[in-house]
Amino acid sequence: MKVYIIGTGLIGGSFALDVKAEVKDVEIFGIDHNEKHLQEALEAGLIDHKAGFDDLVNADFVYLAIPVDASMEILPKILDVVNENCVVTDAGSTKEELCEKVAKHPKRRNYLAGHPIAGTEFSGPTAALHGLFKYKTNIICEIEKTAFKLQEKALEIFHAIGMRIRYMDPVSHDRHIAYVSHLSHISSFMLGKTVLEKEKNERDIFDLAGSGFASTVRLAKSSPEMWTPIFRQNKKNVIETLDEYISNLKHFRQLMEANDFEEVFQEMHKTNHIKDVLNGITQNENLKILENGK
Amino acid sequence: MKVYIIGTGLIGGSFALDVKAEVKDVEIFGIDHNEKHLQEALEAGLIDHKAGFDDLVNADFVYLAIPVDASMEILPKILDVVNENCVVTDAGSTKEELCEKVAKHPKRRNYLAGHPIAGTEFSGPTAALHGLFKYKTNIICEIEKTAFKLQEKALEIFHAIGMRIRYMDPVSHDRHIAYVSHLSHISSFMLGKTVLEKEKNERDIFDLAGSGFASTVRLAKSSPEMWTPIFRQNKKNVIETLDEYISNLKHFRQLMEANDFEEVFQEMHKTNHIKDVLNGITQNENLKILENGK
Repeated sequence: MKVYIIGTGLIGGSFALDVKAEVKDVEIFGIDHNEKHLQEALEAGLIDHKAGFDDLVNADFVYLAIPVDASMEILPKILDVVNENCVVTDAGSTKEELCEKVAKHPKRRNYLAGHPIAGTEFSGPTAALHGLFKYKTNIICEIEKTAFKLQEKALEIFHAIGMRIRYMDPVSHDRHIAYVSHLSHISSFMLGKTVLEKEKNERDIFDLAGSGFASTVRLAKSSPEMWTPIFRQNKKNVIETLDEYISNLKHFRQLMEANDFEEVFQEMHKTNHIKDVLNGITQNENLKILENGK
Repeated sequence: MKVYIIGTGLIGGSFALDVKAEVKDVEIFGIDHNEKHLQEALEAGLIDHKAGFDDLVNADFVYLAIPVDASMEILPKILDVVNENCVVTDAGSTKEELCEKVAKHPKRRNYLAGHPIAGTEFSGPTAALHGLFKYKTNIICEIEKTAFKLQEKALEIFHAIGMRIRYMDPVSHDRHIAYVSHLSHISSFMLGKTVLEKEKNERDIFDLAGSGFASTVRLAKSSPEMWTPIFRQNKKNVIETLDEYISNLKHFRQLMEANDFEEVFQEMHKTNHIKDVLNGITQNENLKILENGK
């Protein structure tokens, strides 16, 4: 099977690594407009060969892992080129606009809209990790619009690398993901900004900040190249989450201002319940660690 | 040396563990109004003996690790009881009110105001960890108000368990720490609240949230018993940080509303610089891991 990875960064590179390890008789081709990245991906053994756009006619499976604004340009062109037995799937963090973009494409049935809930705050081929997708959810949208045989082909690969599947329509996907992913990034970026503006002396932050701050601000290391188009595409939902977040922060501030510390306590106490949810998330990580024998 | 730990939770318990491991001829006594915690601390070997308040007359070193409102009540009483060669230090996250509270105490010179930048989101004796303080900063306030011989005694112990020392006046401490610690906790709690309110179905959060969300919301697991009095004592500074944070979030929202995604990009790009700061923080963690040979 000939697998083409378009965008050989953290996500594409990690996907290549695992497919190579878990799927038999596979040959991996990389396409990237960044020649340096492509060369790094080849040297790191993420891909077997460099390829060009025209080679896609030979592909059995295409994995598109580039910023979501670029996907809007590139996905229709990929569908133009691929043969009828090829399945094209992607890793974009927004799904509504992309699904609309190709809704009328004559080869719509070759496309499977995906979003793996996996990643780190790093980017580029050197950030690729073995097992990044294991026990992670791949959200698949509009499954009914993909040819059945191609659904099967894609699911076989997703299962091989250990992913769990969840089906969702693109509108719901973008609304939910605004809360559980996009908002976290903004809260983290603005926290980083607030502290950097105040603490001009980095040594102070370094000395005074602990692992709690490091954890909360970790996502502020994320790539603006990747996140700007996500916020643009999911603008309506992200603004809604921001409004609710700002309103909750203002409420907390007002409780403090009014010396209502009994309510301040209750606000935190009620939210402690997030523990159960987080235990669910980290359980998957623990499963992975156990299995790796670490 | 007789070391008394008042409050045998995460901080007091971890301190006891390391002092026992690193300081010679030490005997550890625990005092806790929570009898269950005290018993757990004894059974886990964090302390050698349970003790009562009156026994403090025999103490050479007292470590006070209880919520900051309780410290306001208890610290003067400890100073009333201890002998003149005993140093009393604490782990409270706010320093201005406590330093004021004991400013005129006849035994002020027996007190050393401290704040170790160490901890986790867990609490209680079962959360105690070996090496929690290693390479962490202990912020010491008003060092000049502590008797010189007692400064020496305390610093010897702090060095023995691997802490770095930083001196700061209590007013500056409370202002800086509002930014690099207290604000992170509120941003995390309110993020957790916003998501929990929206996603009534926990399964959705579990499936859709990744490690990024888990990291950003981790501090929302923290103890409201500990944090409510911190916010009360540091109210003025915390409200100031909240105002700046809310203002930065509103600005980001406005840029999105106005479709100024070039500026949205710049906001994130400028904040990426937080990487360098975080590398500083994690470098300490890495040093520790290297040294443990892991």
